[in-house]
Amino acid sequence: MSDPLRLGIAGLGTVGAGVVKIVRQKAELLAHRAGRPVVVTAVSARNRDKDRGVSLSDYAWEDDPVALATRDDVDVFVELMGGSDGPAKAATEAAIAAGKDVVTANKAMLAHHGQALALAAEEAGSVLRFEAAVAGGIPVIKALTEGLAGNQIERVLGVMNGTCNYILTRMEGAGLTYEEAFAEADALGYLEADPELDVGGIDAGHKLSLLASIAFGTQVNFAGVALEGIGQVSIDDIRQAGDMGYKIKLLGVSQMTGRGLEQRMAPCLVPETSPLGQLVGGTNMVVIEGDQVGQIVMRGAGAGEGPTASAVMGDVIDIARGTRVSTFGQAASSLAPVAAAATATPAPYYLRMALLDRPGALAKVATCLGDAGISINRMRQYDHVDETAPVLIVTHRTTRSALDEALAAMARTGVVASEPVALRIERV
Amino acid sequence: MSDPLRLGIAGLGTVGAGVVKIVRQKAELLAHRAGRPVVVTAVSARNRDKDRGVSLSDYAWEDDPVALATRDDVDVFVELMGGSDGPAKAATEAAIAAGKDVVTANKAMLAHHGQALALAAEEAGSVLRFEAAVAGGIPVIKALTEGLAGNQIERVLGVMNGTCNYILTRMEGAGLTYEEAFAEADALGYLEADPELDVGGIDAGHKLSLLASIAFGTQVNFAGVALEGIGQVSIDDIRQAGDMGYKIKLLGVSQMTGRGLEQRMAPCLVPETSPLGQLVGGTNMVVIEGDQVGQIVMRGAGAGEGPTASAVMGDVIDIARGTRVSTFGQAASSLAPVAAAATATPAPYYLRMALLDRPGALAKVATCLGDAGISINRMRQYDHVDETAPVLIVTHRTTRSALDEALAAMARTGVVASEPVALRIERV
Repeated sequence: MSDPLRLGIAGLGTVGAGVVKIVRQKAELLAHRAGRPVVVTAVSARNRDKDRGVSLSDYAWEDDPVALATRDDVDVFVELMGGSDGPAKAATEAAIAAGKDVVTANKAMLAHHGQALALAAEEAGSVLRFEAAVAGGIPVIKALTEGLAGNQIERVLGVMNGTCNYILTRMEGAGLTYEEAFAEADALGYLEADPELDVGGIDAGHKLSLLASIAFGTQVNFAGVALEGIGQVSIDDIRQAGDMGYKIKLLGVSQMTGRGLEQRMAPCLVPETSPLGQLVGGTNMVVIEGDQVGQIVMRGAGAGEGPTASAVMGDVIDIARGTRVSTFGQAASSLAPVAAAATATPAPYYLRMALLDRPGALAKVATCLGDAGISINRMRQYDHVDETAPVLIVTHRTTRSALDEALAAMARTGVVASEPVALRIERV
Repeated sequence: MSDPLRLGIAGLGTVGAGVVKIVRQKAELLAHRAGRPVVVTAVSARNRDKDRGVSLSDYAWEDDPVALATRDDVDVFVELMGGSDGPAKAATEAAIAAGKDVVTANKAMLAHHGQALALAAEEAGSVLRFEAAVAGGIPVIKALTEGLAGNQIERVLGVMNGTCNYILTRMEGAGLTYEEAFAEADALGYLEADPELDVGGIDAGHKLSLLASIAFGTQVNFAGVALEGIGQVSIDDIRQAGDMGYKIKLLGVSQMTGRGLEQRMAPCLVPETSPLGQLVGGTNMVVIEGDQVGQIVMRGAGAGEGPTASAVMGDVIDIARGTRVSTFGQAASSLAPVAAAATATPAPYYLRMALLDRPGALAKVATCLGDAGISINRMRQYDHVDETAPVLIVTHRTTRSALDEALAAMARTGVVASEPVALRIERV
């Protein structure tokens, strides 16, 4: 049998401990599949004494992840510390410089430094892989980078933050306000230390930027992701979108256009009968559209010890088998810098507003839309509540700039009680 | 840039022509992703003069696929002829013997000869891959073999024959009889030359046996697949299962049990709200359950030029990149021979029968179930039609042998007008 593949694991939270457990408990299975034993030789974490539910006494301990990453008895540096900079980045760079291969779950680090790290890995002849950074246990990085590599990718979209989907699902199912559902997710430990990473769409935006790089052969451009969180989504929107046959999801969408790379992470409406519309709770879903394959939908757990450790192990076994694929699916030096598209692809929009009880109010609103060249697909006015009448409008396909023009004109009519909610309806 | 990877393609039907088109039209994209050019050097088919919508004049022509497979200017033999034996097998064996790598879409050949071919490839140091053989464009072989390799796989199931799903969907949606839906699928060219391959579940059974080999580390055992086609499914079953909240699908299920390997391909009921229940038309879906990752669902086109060619190209690009994974995910010599489980895992069942209009008829049927230790979850009796009353029963979890005992006892009561329909309800 060949030499064992030796892992050095930095970061022993739930995922790191999960990886250690798999390596210990599935030694024979892994050796069969990888064609050689996979072992842990050294580990590193902030707190040596914490009980992690698994024995670490067989492994060398390093307080310093950089020291771990460069040990002679480590072939693969497994980075599970997190954080876009600091120790994670320093240790990853050190590992690459020392000719080690790297497996990471760190979406923030790759969203900010992916191009530089991929280039460094390429120059050093190292492999840098990150299946666990996107959509947890779903092997979507592999599908996009390898399985669908014969396709011109047309669009990648999906629900990539389970916490946001949990909050939206609870608002809908239990009639909670955003604040109540947020508090519930917090109590369950679903939120990042900085919750804005979740509910602000930043974490999901990181993931989207990595998928886009592979899909379109471009340098990671996280700064080009148009980010909008779920904090503005109200229970009224969820209910009334439901009345019109839609669900509201924090949806990431990436597509290449003549205007540049479009990357959006924002609450959108999707048909309730679509696979994305039917996604509930913390589950993730990624949809890949290719010119040959059509639409591929992948669904699974987006987080958690087992699913994330599964993704880490997929990368580890690849390396053990001798598979060496470029970080973003082609030589980092061949990835094109790309400008963000200034405007989004036209789409239908959902509008919700409260109209004052005045004669001709609805006509004024409709006129604003018509003047901006926007036609109305469906409109509903509900009974008056407190002097105002809720009105829902689904437009036909329009540009966001035409919509903004119409919204500005509506504000000048004096019949719209507060700023209308406008949500994109994504084709899925 | 490195040397080009040179393909020899045998079989120029829609998929073969699709592969040629991708190689010609996406040369730059493929070279970027593969790290080297991918070219076709030679082709082979039965009819040289047929118009395939793509120029073949740049390629050497071989009438004999064995001659193609062993050409000095071919690195990868792409086998798209089909058929479990004959020229496909002869040429694949010749290619392996000549040290070529092989990419095939041939599920029948692998279901019957997969172990021997994988062993031969292993001994010759060749790669033999078959993503296109299972579930068309869905990269499920890659997900199972590579992405989820850190998991003990617990169950693999899915809808893997689009033609059957099309027929069942049309029966339900348009109220067609089986014969009418079959004739429609035939007119659309959806059926294999021998339609029994589709509607008898054989084609889907081939695919299931390949997935099971990877999932459980066992030698392909197609003979061990319990096969049942869709020919016995009636429009009444579809409607009445619908009344109870279920859809009928030709479902393949594979799981390892203490009694041996269970592989079933048969019409089953699944909840209409489940992803499998919501699958319509020719789309495929494969569900993989692993001990770490939980449930992964993958959906996409199961056939057609683009999707199948996409899968072939995934394998080709892997080889171009230097990826060398064993055919069934571990050394062929390490795959264990496995006995088929003699009995299926217990499950709830759906029963439909016509009861004669006699006092105590329903009680007699219920007694037969009770005597066999089977409890009833739900029961419905409908209005009488022609002297008999349709009765639907959903049982609690039971063994098939207990159910068969109850059905035999029912036949002896004299109150059941014709043989009851019994369909398994699969947990999904």
